[in-house]
Amino acid sequence: MGKQKNNNQTKSSSQLIIYGRHAVISALQNPHRKIYKIFCTKENAEELIKINPKFNITISERKEIDKLLPPDSVHQGFAILCAPLDTYSLEEIIELSEQQKKCHLLILDQVTDPQNIGAIIRSCAAFNSLALIMQDKNSPTETGAMAKASAGTIEYLPICRVTNISRAIEQLKEVGFWIIGMDGYAQTTIDKMNKSGKTAIIMGSEGKGMRRLIEESCDSTVKLPMNEKVESLNVATAAAIALYEINKD
Amino acid sequence: MGKQKNNNQTKSSSQLIIYGRHAVISALQNPHRKIYKIFCTKENAEELIKINPKFNITISERKEIDKLLPPDSVHQGFAILCAPLDTYSLEEIIELSEQQKKCHLLILDQVTDPQNIGAIIRSCAAFNSLALIMQDKNSPTETGAMAKASAGTIEYLPICRVTNISRAIEQLKEVGFWIIGMDGYAQTTIDKMNKSGKTAIIMGSEGKGMRRLIEESCDSTVKLPMNEKVESLNVATAAAIALYEINKD
Repeated sequence: MGKQKNNNQTKSSSQLIIYGRHAVISALQNPHRKIYKIFCTKENAEELIKINPKFNITISERKEIDKLLPPDSVHQGFAILCAPLDTYSLEEIIELSEQQKKCHLLILDQVTDPQNIGAIIRSCAAFNSLALIMQDKNSPTETGAMAKASAGTIEYLPICRVTNISRAIEQLKEVGFWIIGMDGYAQTTIDKMNKSGKTAIIMGSEGKGMRRLIEESCDSTVKLPMNEKVESLNVATAAAIALYEINKD
Repeated sequence: MGKQKNNNQTKSSSQLIIYGRHAVISALQNPHRKIYKIFCTKENAEELIKINPKFNITISERKEIDKLLPPDSVHQGFAILCAPLDTYSLEEIIELSEQQKKCHLLILDQVTDPQNIGAIIRSCAAFNSLALIMQDKNSPTETGAMAKASAGTIEYLPICRVTNISRAIEQLKEVGFWIIGMDGYAQTTIDKMNKSGKTAIIMGSEGKGMRRLIEESCDSTVKLPMNEKVESLNVATAAAIALYEINKD
């Protein structure tokens, strides 16, 4: 894909620990992922060596891996110390979109929980999103919890961090994207949205929703058709439904 | 609704702690929820007293509430000691369905994570499910984490615990339910499923799926249309999409 370093990216922490079987194996299979150290139990090492006999593994007890991680992290006896992946510039995302007649991507406005973001990355991958776009300043950089919640999909889904979401929306409009905001007060339900061509879906944080300025820049807004007694859904759940709907034939 | 005690229910722990603003306020507003004790910070007490000046509140520091809960529980200065809600018998659920021409419910086979179950309860409430049915033996009883993940919807969604899922499926078939299993290997995608009449959707655990016997008792199976690179979605995410789809006009 000719992924180059994104020069716009802010300096993120230069290393993180990824843990959990699925997340670790996916990271080890990703040629773009720089691995510093592999920790795993003796049994797990046998599994990893089958994937690549050259892996340099530090055999560790489960308790030792526990100490590397936040309390109650479910690591299943797998952890790696590694570098975060390079993110994409908006220009690179637009370049990817130029190869397609119909495509969609997701923009998150002020969503901050790493686990929700990881789950959203997984849904983006499942439902063929071109990319996930977040604001650089208010979004967490890659973490182990995010990688785990993404079930390994963080290894290949293009992620783009932009300084200014409004400006990114303008640039996407210029190249033909239709901008759809998710808003509980919208008139139209999401199954009636325009699904032709290139679409960017915007989601705000749970509870607060999109910021007003962002909402005003949308071409249309849609809501999930749901029971009025329930105020909202978790942002990752709502995103999954939106992506499922846009990805359907 | 004339909810009576479900005599089939196994004895569950007679008290639990519900925490978090939304979950606690919903529980306090539920006339069927027996409350033993209310703990909250001084500021939060003012909010609760506006709801009901008769609440007998034990003003507590955040740190004191921390001690009542598992580590890292996000309680926002609200916690209550209370009794679990009565569950419904299958007969009661069938009675509810008799009042409707078209309705749907969700059956979970071997889903064990309380947080996933809480999130699924929230989606059931959002997308107008009649009830959530689980196996009594292998499903967790109500917990604080489950109530929190349900964002208060556990207070009113009918939940039914059955001894034998296969037997429950047979009983539902007898009263006209069409049984649809979610299965990653199904031929049909979920948007093409039969949505008329009364429907029960069955979901197995993430990874393992439904047990073979349960799968064989389905009238049809459907899958989510997703990218082959992604093995599966989180069970709560997949359930939300299925419920959204069945609830659509």
